[in-house]
Amino acid sequence: MTVEQFASRHIGPDPADERRMLQAVGYDSVDELMDAAIPEVIRWHGTLDLPEPASEHDALAELRALAARNTVAVSMIGLGYHGTHTPAVIRRNVLESPAWYTAYTPYQPEISQGRLEALLNFQTMVTDLTGLATANASMLDEGTAAAEAMTLARRASKSRSSVYVVDADALPQTLAVITSRAEPLGIEVRVVDVDAEELPAEFFGLHLQYPGASGAVRDHAALVAAAHEVGALVCVAADLLALTLLRPPGQIGVDVAAGTTQRFGVPMGFGGPHAGYLAVRSGLERMLPGRLVGVSRDADGNPAYRLALQTREQHIRREKATSNICTAQVLLAVMAGMYAVYHGPDGLRGIAERTHGMAARLAAGLRAGGVAVADVAFFDTVTARVPGRAAQVVAAAAGRGVNLRLVDADRVGISCDETTTTAHLSAVWAAFGVTGVDGDVDAALPAALARTSDFLTHAVFRSHHSETAMLRYLRRLADFDYALDRGMIPLGSCTMKLNATTEMEPVSWAEFAHVHPFAPAAQTAGYREMIAQLEGWLAEVTGYDAVSVQPNAGSQGELAGLLAIRAYHRDRGEGHRDVCLIPSSAHGTNAASAVMAGMRVVVVGCDGDGNVDLVDLDAKIDKHRDALAAIMVTYPSTHGVYETGIAQLCARVHDAGGQVYVDGANLNALVGFAKPGRFGADVSHLNLHKTFCIPHGGGGPGVGPVAVRAHLAAFLPGDPVGEPESGRPAISAARYGSAGILPIPWAYLRMMGAAGLTRATGVAVLAANYVAVRLREHFPVLYAGNKGLVAHECILDLRPVTKATGVTVDDVAKRLIDYGFHAPTMSFPVAGTLMVEPTESEDLAELDRFCAAMIAIRAEIDKVGSGEWPAGDNPLANAPHTAAMVAGDEWPHPYPRSVGAYPAGVDRAGKYWPPVRRIDGAYGDRNLMCSCPPAEAFEQ
Amino acid sequence: MTVEQFASRHIGPDPADERRMLQAVGYDSVDELMDAAIPEVIRWHGTLDLPEPASEHDALAELRALAARNTVAVSMIGLGYHGTHTPAVIRRNVLESPAWYTAYTPYQPEISQGRLEALLNFQTMVTDLTGLATANASMLDEGTAAAEAMTLARRASKSRSSVYVVDADALPQTLAVITSRAEPLGIEVRVVDVDAEELPAEFFGLHLQYPGASGAVRDHAALVAAAHEVGALVCVAADLLALTLLRPPGQIGVDVAAGTTQRFGVPMGFGGPHAGYLAVRSGLERMLPGRLVGVSRDADGNPAYRLALQTREQHIRREKATSNICTAQVLLAVMAGMYAVYHGPDGLRGIAERTHGMAARLAAGLRAGGVAVADVAFFDTVTARVPGRAAQVVAAAAGRGVNLRLVDADRVGISCDETTTTAHLSAVWAAFGVTGVDGDVDAALPAALARTSDFLTHAVFRSHHSETAMLRYLRRLADFDYALDRGMIPLGSCTMKLNATTEMEPVSWAEFAHVHPFAPAAQTAGYREMIAQLEGWLAEVTGYDAVSVQPNAGSQGELAGLLAIRAYHRDRGEGHRDVCLIPSSAHGTNAASAVMAGMRVVVVGCDGDGNVDLVDLDAKIDKHRDALAAIMVTYPSTHGVYETGIAQLCARVHDAGGQVYVDGANLNALVGFAKPGRFGADVSHLNLHKTFCIPHGGGGPGVGPVAVRAHLAAFLPGDPVGEPESGRPAISAARYGSAGILPIPWAYLRMMGAAGLTRATGVAVLAANYVAVRLREHFPVLYAGNKGLVAHECILDLRPVTKATGVTVDDVAKRLIDYGFHAPTMSFPVAGTLMVEPTESEDLAELDRFCAAMIAIRAEIDKVGSGEWPAGDNPLANAPHTAAMVAGDEWPHPYPRSVGAYPAGVDRAGKYWPPVRRIDGAYGDRNLMCSCPPAEAFEQ
Repeated sequence: MTVEQFASRHIGPDPADERRMLQAVGYDSVDELMDAAIPEVIRWHGTLDLPEPASEHDALAELRALAARNTVAVSMIGLGYHGTHTPAVIRRNVLESPAWYTAYTPYQPEISQGRLEALLNFQTMVTDLTGLATANASMLDEGTAAAEAMTLARRASKSRSSVYVVDADALPQTLAVITSRAEPLGIEVRVVDVDAEELPAEFFGLHLQYPGASGAVRDHAALVAAAHEVGALVCVAADLLALTLLRPPGQIGVDVAAGTTQRFGVPMGFGGPHAGYLAVRSGLERMLPGRLVGVSRDADGNPAYRLALQTREQHIRREKATSNICTAQVLLAVMAGMYAVYHGPDGLRGIAERTHGMAARLAAGLRAGGVAVADVAFFDTVTARVPGRAAQVVAAAAGRGVNLRLVDADRVGISCDETTTTAHLSAVWAAFGVTGVDGDVDAALPAALARTSDFLTHAVFRSHHSETAMLRYLRRLADFDYALDRGMIPLGSCTMKLNATTEMEPVSWAEFAHVHPFAPAAQTAGYREMIAQLEGWLAEVTGYDAVSVQPNAGSQGELAGLLAIRAYHRDRGEGHRDVCLIPSSAHGTNAASAVMAGMRVVVVGCDGDGNVDLVDLDAKIDKHRDALAAIMVTYPSTHGVYETGIAQLCARVHDAGGQVYVDGANLNALVGFAKPGRFGADVSHLNLHKTFCIPHGGGGPGVGPVAVRAHLAAFLPGDPVGEPESGRPAISAARYGSAGILPIPWAYLRMMGAAGLTRATGVAVLAANYVAVRLREHFPVLYAGNKGLVAHECILDLRPVTKATGVTVDDVAKRLIDYGFHAPTMSFPVAGTLMVEPTESEDLAELDRFCAAMIAIRAEIDKVGSGEWPAGDNPLANAPHTAAMVAGDEWPHPYPRSVGAYPAGVDRAGKYWPPVRRIDGAYGDRNLMCSCPPAEAFEQ
Repeated sequence: MTVEQFASRHIGPDPADERRMLQAVGYDSVDELMDAAIPEVIRWHGTLDLPEPASEHDALAELRALAARNTVAVSMIGLGYHGTHTPAVIRRNVLESPAWYTAYTPYQPEISQGRLEALLNFQTMVTDLTGLATANASMLDEGTAAAEAMTLARRASKSRSSVYVVDADALPQTLAVITSRAEPLGIEVRVVDVDAEELPAEFFGLHLQYPGASGAVRDHAALVAAAHEVGALVCVAADLLALTLLRPPGQIGVDVAAGTTQRFGVPMGFGGPHAGYLAVRSGLERMLPGRLVGVSRDADGNPAYRLALQTREQHIRREKATSNICTAQVLLAVMAGMYAVYHGPDGLRGIAERTHGMAARLAAGLRAGGVAVADVAFFDTVTARVPGRAAQVVAAAAGRGVNLRLVDADRVGISCDETTTTAHLSAVWAAFGVTGVDGDVDAALPAALARTSDFLTHAVFRSHHSETAMLRYLRRLADFDYALDRGMIPLGSCTMKLNATTEMEPVSWAEFAHVHPFAPAAQTAGYREMIAQLEGWLAEVTGYDAVSVQPNAGSQGELAGLLAIRAYHRDRGEGHRDVCLIPSSAHGTNAASAVMAGMRVVVVGCDGDGNVDLVDLDAKIDKHRDALAAIMVTYPSTHGVYETGIAQLCARVHDAGGQVYVDGANLNALVGFAKPGRFGADVSHLNLHKTFCIPHGGGGPGVGPVAVRAHLAAFLPGDPVGEPESGRPAISAARYGSAGILPIPWAYLRMMGAAGLTRATGVAVLAANYVAVRLREHFPVLYAGNKGLVAHECILDLRPVTKATGVTVDDVAKRLIDYGFHAPTMSFPVAGTLMVEPTESEDLAELDRFCAAMIAIRAEIDKVGSGEWPAGDNPLANAPHTAAMVAGDEWPHPYPRSVGAYPAGVDRAGKYWPPVRRIDGAYGDRNLMCSCPPAEAFEQ
């Protein structure tokens, strides 16, 4: 009479598979394997203290009960978070579609053309609306986008000033994030009331809000000119909906625009996730942080999309990087872009006009009732003055189901949006004790700032306005892409495991989706309880004492962790400690984060086995003993090995007064078997989108909680809009970051329980060792730990075959597409290798299919090596093969079409065909084009 | 300040498209076109009295409010409807996936292999569990399946008796449906308590329930033998979950099994839709009604699936048909089959054992408390005896949130299911005033009836038990198929229009999904109000006085309408009227329904313009004047023409004492412009899955409400389990039929409003005329009405080109697949033609793409005609081209591969590839195989 366990659905191999895999690896049980693989020095032998696992049905019922404790009020708080109607066709066919949400970051562009096109739409939307030249493919939120704009300005400015001026009418959470980011970099943030105060004589950058947090729409042209006068750059945080009616920043020479696209159909989700944006004028594109999609061409010369200018990115620039951002918000950027595609320019303008009309009428009604409303131009937000009565008015509105913004004791802010109705206006008027007005009123937009330029003129924004057309467009793009719903994505370090439907469903529920991050606490009891439970469970799993879910990406978790270390040292009067040791094998973000946290990076070498070189470590510690702030290591190592020296490493760093940061990227190899917080680490960030099942979404959302031992707990992120707490930085714009997707890891932990989580880890390690054993005779497996075992991933060394045959890692990765796979991680952490992480969710049939493909590819490589196939024209060099290529009238290649199209073992009827051939990335970087190409480009 | 109207999303062409289309057709406005197209004699010039259209957001909010008025109780009522956990991966990726729900019936098998495989899984599941040879691809529900079993028995039995014996322990609603079906056919239903009474001396069939409605599990072997002794056939209505533990009917020589698969993961939905099933022993397969999927082979000799033995079906056999069923319940059958795939045999057995364990413990607890429980073997249901207290116990349980079955004043029925928990048992015990028992108890299954045979041994039931594997299997099958999410499905008479997401979303809501059809009325207020509103709106749209949504398919609506006519005549003492006139162009179901309603079919000819031949009509009326019961016509005609003679036709039939039945299949050409109930008809059925946006689901669910004028209202369907009402038949097993999907048409009507509906009709007619005008010079357009206009569809005559070139309708239909289209309706109503119905949802770009494809195909035909391409080997004869074919190493054809694969205008990157080549249907009919083929069949 047992109910079926979710763990048996999450974990791919069944007991019979598991026995066969153990036999191949040479162990009798998973426990025995794990005893052999994990060094006893870090091993934890307890049972995780988590609730007994719930069935899928019961977990949903518990989440329903938590959701029911949230109140979905009408939100008129504004401050960058607005009510919006997600078009149902987009909700169902993007947010709720595994084809979109289980996709990975489009590093393999040939099998990612769908989301790359969607992101190009997003970039085009942002550039058109802001009037700037180039936009990236999204940022984490408006606050972090604005902070990145600040550092971009510092890099680009000729001014030697360290002053960054921020508009007093900026969003308060944006100011908080900017301030937190500025401090470790030695930037002085100066808040200026641009209506009343002079700008300082010298500054390197100026941040303006358009419209302001108060709602005021100002003409910034003179300020922009003044800033440029002193060599400063200007960033405008602009509301894209307002820009459909207002003169765009690009038109007055603004250098950078930043903001959010949340109100373009993405639910508020108690703070996130939504896609922030960042756009720059011509000339700054190569300084733009984050992902950038560009147009290039494939082997046939056809237009094809891929990530552009990757040499800017932190994974290549490491300690020279200027930003650590890595994950974007692709899924949400796709939604926002599709919202613009579906509504088109006229539709967006109509929404903006209606929103403004509501605000204008609201203001007129307040004035008619004798309430003073600031006498300025506005778009959607008005600030009313009710001396001494503000709290009372806000409470009265809440009693009518409407949340307003309590600015201070005397002022109330009210924002209208797409969802505002006259009933909402009446409720607000009633809360103010006025009767309001009937009918439309005059617009309150300044004529001088009216938009005169076109936007969204590309055909994509004119062609998909019926639901039928939109549905088909989404299907067409989804079909271009390879995601987990087609097959394995064995990406080392990325943990592409199941994103179970039961985990995903609650994300769509109104009680989670439609909550403003600054809603009164009484309305968010369910959210806060869920988050507290999740933070508690994560602490239990990792062995730490405190967790904050605020960082909305792994990179932000790193920064938060390092800032906690920094604050700790300063708190103890050791603020001079600023050296961060980082092994040469580390993730590129580690070094970038350390720089952002104001630290100096010192690299520690690795030995021949891929382990941190403890001799070099000692040398570096000795050299920097007094300045030593921290070491950042990944465990298991980025080489996929359980290093036995980890305990010694921790001890030595601690002895030198440093703190130990363990990057949690590889936590999937530890859960239930070892706890970083117990084996010597002081702080970690976790990747909820790796180990804890938040889907990668095609390149975001990610969530990167930071977990610390007790002595660092006081330095965890604080509330960006709460009372300032000394030492607590604002890492993202909302207190709980991307709260809207936290039901996913909550459900995962709730349904797996201690036994399920532990078994998942064991099977993940078993699967990696199974692949290593099966492929070892065909490709050398680099690095191993105890008894020759790897952890949860293994590195296949292709350098010998490349040397012998000229066949590259790239060729093999592209050839895997022909076999129906997404490539493993390429050339990380070792150039010329493939890192395979199968995860626990792939069953034996899929593991075997992958091994068979790799073995078959090895045989193909040998044919190149033997000269049977010429080096430049063989199935590897020509991969991936498109249908159009193998169905072409000409076939000039020295191997049969069938070998190109249908290598052994491929599912002929169900074959996935990439829409383009191999893409020439360099061409696109030389000829940079980052918005939608004209239709003629596709003519054949 | 207007909110965007849903109508502009539903209707494909925008105003600019509309202008271009009008220009081509030669009218200035849609109104002018409609004035010209629709005969004034039927034209209605009013404005539909419907609520102002709601936005998508507001319509969902209203439905939320209605849903909130339903109570989701724990249902332990049983009677064929059980709580079940729909696996979330199936809910999201089948029920909520447009790729599955927007598909059409798999008449074009090459582009339907996904759902055909899913249905083959369903059939295999049913045959395995019942132990019978052949199962069809689903029935409408258990009641109608049992009724079809009765008529099958009558056809197959050698007995000349007209007596059909029904087990007194049959489900009450099944008995009601059987009785309603029996009466017009002259079958006498005799209810026998098989425990206590003797069987009659003669009878042609015996219906047994296994387990019985009371829960009793009886050994039926002796009864089966006795029935066979007198030449009768035996139908067992069996619970498939119980059959995982109990000896299957096939093992004791049962001839037919019928039932439902609802508890295999399909929500109760207040009565439907769910997939019924029907299975027969070897030798009866060619008598099986309904759709049957079988294995055949394609042009390469590879296994391929298609509908088998179609010559049995009503659309071919017409008045000789023995069943009118047409639509099946494909979407729900896919869900149930996938539930079995996901759980596998062990999983299903585990669910059954757990369910039985709960029931056994429930009974033990009742007995321990002194409550008498019938001393019989049972599976999931027990009947408790509480003399005089039954109503009180049921009320007490309801007070605890649990619904029980009130059998009579003294007895209470309690059913356990997959969702039953010990908390539910405690609530039941408390309602009985007993304390219950702890722990497991002995099973109450009779050892002699224990199942010993294996089931679900095919690999498909062993390979997809992890969610990852299941997700990929569903994606793979979905990718095989062409549905509305890929492109136009211009099927004449089928109205494949948009199924908007907003219409679909509420179907998943718990308050609609998890309601038992026999739940107390107090718990279903929201449902009943929604249905009353919907029935009212449908009456307004059609001009009738009363509507019943009970018929769960169009065919059932026909039967209900004809039975109302029959009852009306009998009520007036004219029961001898039994002639039903049917034009030769009618849908095949019409004639079959008439036969089922006990009528004699007399065919009326059509004239050269495709209209009913009024001269022949007069002749037939004269000949059958005294016996005339009714005429059944379709309007606009099945030729897609607004016949001007319709008013005369109605008058003449009425004058002769007959009733006029207007088949509502083509209502999409009338809404807002004409009302059948006003222009002379007495009764219609509607197809909510055509005009009112219920998706076709790959071949069901459908809903076919019957609408009547006031004089027939008393004869509309009654409540199958309510107090018997004279003259009201039970058409389906539940009072409101497939209530669970009625939010779809409700939302459509609510969001379109009068103006939107009227515009939709106009654009549908405009689109059909646009296609006719554009294609007229390439293919003759058959039939036209006023001013040469067609209605909402047009017939392209291919007979001249077939005669001249040998290229057939089939060739063109298959070639359209290469161009990226689903074929129009083939050879109906005229052999050798294609009937095109574009609907209002296709935008001009898609209409033009279709026209361009047809024109290009015409040019291809000419190349065959000119001899440039040989008759037997050309792109038309070889269509559809698979990727494997055009990428083959050999290419023996006299045209280039590119012509086969990528005809002009095809989207190369996004091309849809069928998984198989043209299928040889006849081969499969000669070598009938209707369950999953072994894996070896697919080896290459």
